[in-house]
Amino acid sequence: MVEQTAIPISGIILAGGIGSRFWPLSRSQYPKQVLRLLGSESMIQSTIERLLPRIPLERLLVVTNAGQSDVISLELRRKGWQGIRLILEPEGRNTAPAVGLAAALLGEDPTGLLAVFPADHFIREPDSLLAALAQGAVWATAGYLVTFGIPPSRPETGYGYIKQGAPLGRAGTGFAVDRFIEKPDLARAQAFLDEGGYYWNSGIFLFRRDVLLAAMARHLPEVHRGLVRLMEDANQDLLAQIYRDFPNISLDHGIMERADQVAVVPVEMGWNDVGTWGALQDIFPRDGQGNVILGRSLDLDSKGCTIYAQNRLVATIGLKDVIVVDTPDATLVCHRERVQEVKDLVAELNRREMVESVQHLTVERPWGSYTVMEEGSGYKVKQIEVSPGSRLSLQMHQRRAEHWVVVQGTARVTIGTDVKLVTSNQSVYIPLKTAHRLENPEAKPLRIIEVQTGSYLGEDDIQRLDDDYSRS
Amino acid sequence: MVEQTAIPISGIILAGGIGSRFWPLSRSQYPKQVLRLLGSESMIQSTIERLLPRIPLERLLVVTNAGQSDVISLELRRKGWQGIRLILEPEGRNTAPAVGLAAALLGEDPTGLLAVFPADHFIREPDSLLAALAQGAVWATAGYLVTFGIPPSRPETGYGYIKQGAPLGRAGTGFAVDRFIEKPDLARAQAFLDEGGYYWNSGIFLFRRDVLLAAMARHLPEVHRGLVRLMEDANQDLLAQIYRDFPNISLDHGIMERADQVAVVPVEMGWNDVGTWGALQDIFPRDGQGNVILGRSLDLDSKGCTIYAQNRLVATIGLKDVIVVDTPDATLVCHRERVQEVKDLVAELNRREMVESVQHLTVERPWGSYTVMEEGSGYKVKQIEVSPGSRLSLQMHQRRAEHWVVVQGTARVTIGTDVKLVTSNQSVYIPLKTAHRLENPEAKPLRIIEVQTGSYLGEDDIQRLDDDYSRS
Repeated sequence: MVEQTAIPISGIILAGGIGSRFWPLSRSQYPKQVLRLLGSESMIQSTIERLLPRIPLERLLVVTNAGQSDVISLELRRKGWQGIRLILEPEGRNTAPAVGLAAALLGEDPTGLLAVFPADHFIREPDSLLAALAQGAVWATAGYLVTFGIPPSRPETGYGYIKQGAPLGRAGTGFAVDRFIEKPDLARAQAFLDEGGYYWNSGIFLFRRDVLLAAMARHLPEVHRGLVRLMEDANQDLLAQIYRDFPNISLDHGIMERADQVAVVPVEMGWNDVGTWGALQDIFPRDGQGNVILGRSLDLDSKGCTIYAQNRLVATIGLKDVIVVDTPDATLVCHRERVQEVKDLVAELNRREMVESVQHLTVERPWGSYTVMEEGSGYKVKQIEVSPGSRLSLQMHQRRAEHWVVVQGTARVTIGTDVKLVTSNQSVYIPLKTAHRLENPEAKPLRIIEVQTGSYLGEDDIQRLDDDYSRS
Repeated sequence: MVEQTAIPISGIILAGGIGSRFWPLSRSQYPKQVLRLLGSESMIQSTIERLLPRIPLERLLVVTNAGQSDVISLELRRKGWQGIRLILEPEGRNTAPAVGLAAALLGEDPTGLLAVFPADHFIREPDSLLAALAQGAVWATAGYLVTFGIPPSRPETGYGYIKQGAPLGRAGTGFAVDRFIEKPDLARAQAFLDEGGYYWNSGIFLFRRDVLLAAMARHLPEVHRGLVRLMEDANQDLLAQIYRDFPNISLDHGIMERADQVAVVPVEMGWNDVGTWGALQDIFPRDGQGNVILGRSLDLDSKGCTIYAQNRLVATIGLKDVIVVDTPDATLVCHRERVQEVKDLVAELNRREMVESVQHLTVERPWGSYTVMEEGSGYKVKQIEVSPGSRLSLQMHQRRAEHWVVVQGTARVTIGTDVKLVTSNQSVYIPLKTAHRLENPEAKPLRIIEVQTGSYLGEDDIQRLDDDYSRS
């Protein structure tokens, strides 16, 4: 193995998608990359964690969008990663513009190495990824646009493939790319497996900044022109204007498939793109009947099923190849072979403007979170959790009064000009049209039950007078 | 049709079971007969409603047990049927002892007619039942033990069958029973259908009181001896003692199959015993794909499924012959052919002492209901609804304090010696070890949010000082 510890690499984390195939766990305001699908860390946390031995925080950059920046910032803050730079796309334009934007704004070193990582993949063996990056850095430094290819273990029809060409160096260290192949049907996928020399396209890339920009200039000139203007004068208005005219195109289609000097570095690392609920069967251990059962569940004699029960009880009997995903306000029951259609289902929920496609009952905020427990005629009940040392905005409501009962911790409460400490088992009343603020002055969590009463209880009846998070 | 309006009939409603095959909708403290499975009325309400044109309230008697008497009384009270007599079995001993007990206690008229009805069946055409009862009354008066047989429409293997013998009168008005047949396999069921002259055993019976008791004396002499003692001296201790020694046996096995003068009256009335979740497919209209979808649900391309979504969203994709039943704290997903095993699942929940087999998050009480919204460390949040004019007991807790916020209606609240009215958007605090009472003095519902805080929050931390419902 060739060690290349000396070459610095900057990392671009692509975190702009929703991952609607993971509904009802993913929501438009709670995208796949912040889900704790596979353990105690969110997908984006795991993605960054596995890079840190090779790429320091200050060389990492996350590309996302305004709608998701709050929840993504929160995920970074939870790990103490405030140093990571966030770039917000004005709108989604697929990966070529996103990577181009990041490359344009990472302007320190014209020939520096840039690596691109999706924020929402699973990699069982991070060390293998780091070794492959070291190898890839050799070819990237030499001027190649480097992809990373996963030796296929089955005739998967859900991934794109890369066919290797001539070897670039010692056996297995890298190949010129012969061609990229779109998701094949089963027969072709099997033929690739039988023939050998094909790899799954992992969506991870590595190149010199100048090599990428030159390839953009050649193959996506309209994107390149916009990036050049941004490099001269980076401002939000210009960014919005430029993005509006960008084509919606992936890095694979826009650059990699068209460029000349493209290399593939093979890497076995227990990779899975976690594209659908079906992926859980490949990632988690199965029981004797081929089931993956996570959470509070009881099964009688099902086979090949995936049961994901967040906290309610899910009981199953005699199912075959069925996926059940339960969340506090919505349950999905889907045949294994139809997991791609979860996306269509979400589109239909959107069309019907059903809130279950937008957010969960529990909504994360910079200061903590709230959970809607009940909504009735003229009242709403919420549980509110405030992180240690955090506070909500100083705010006022025109049409609702609030009762707060502290059930855990101690609150510092402002009501009008009055400021007082309210401890567990005490309550306060906030009349309507009265400025108020809820704050957790302690080092342990604060939890209150809020009962709202009033003629209108929408979240938009809020006037923020002062806010630590600059919200208006 | 023979009209027999002159002969009075007393009705015995058998309402002692749990119906655990209807979990998660049925719970041990919320049995099948009180479910609103098929419409706005509970099963037992519909059962009584359809009899009222023929059997007046004062001639109706419901047999149940102590564990279910609260919820059953509530169902009767909701219809204004306080006049219906309730008999509580000390323990379950199947239908022969239950019917014997009712017959013993219905002592006014030694030769009066008694009809027996399960509390949890579906009958689409109640008029046909009443006509059949009129016909059956002729044979019962003449000394027959009368059963009612449903002409089979399919080779059902889930029902017992009755084979007709010689006709008793005009064509179709009744037959001697040749024999009773246990649930057959499919081939036999099909043979019955092909041969003709077989009926499904509906579990509805009609006989003279003296004829039944004489049959009991002959075929279940140990039950008869107990009943005779009870007729001489009806008291709860004796009842408990007698029941302990009763055999666990159905009226079919214990009496009908052994007796000589047994008749069957055929009746087509859209009958269904609603034995499992599968029954909903026979009762509700199906969509073009053979699905029955009730509640808040969205389906893509499923076939032959039953989806029952109480209030949360249930989304389904590409399922075949699957039953999904969603309740606020538990979801069942079961293959159609395995619906009988829901019973086994409930047995397993019981073995694991899981609360989801016992009660719902919403618990009905004589004064209204409460719903547990949240339980955390040191606190519990409930929504409490008090029926117009009702009140909870005057009570006291040793280890918890309570905050009440009125969100709908007006409460009369007693705290210690203080009594006051608390209206919507007002709150009160109940310190621990303080006598208190919650009352709805108005004609519209009262709803409060209760936040409990304390070191112990079990329902058994309650000392009732005064109670409208005589609970201790």
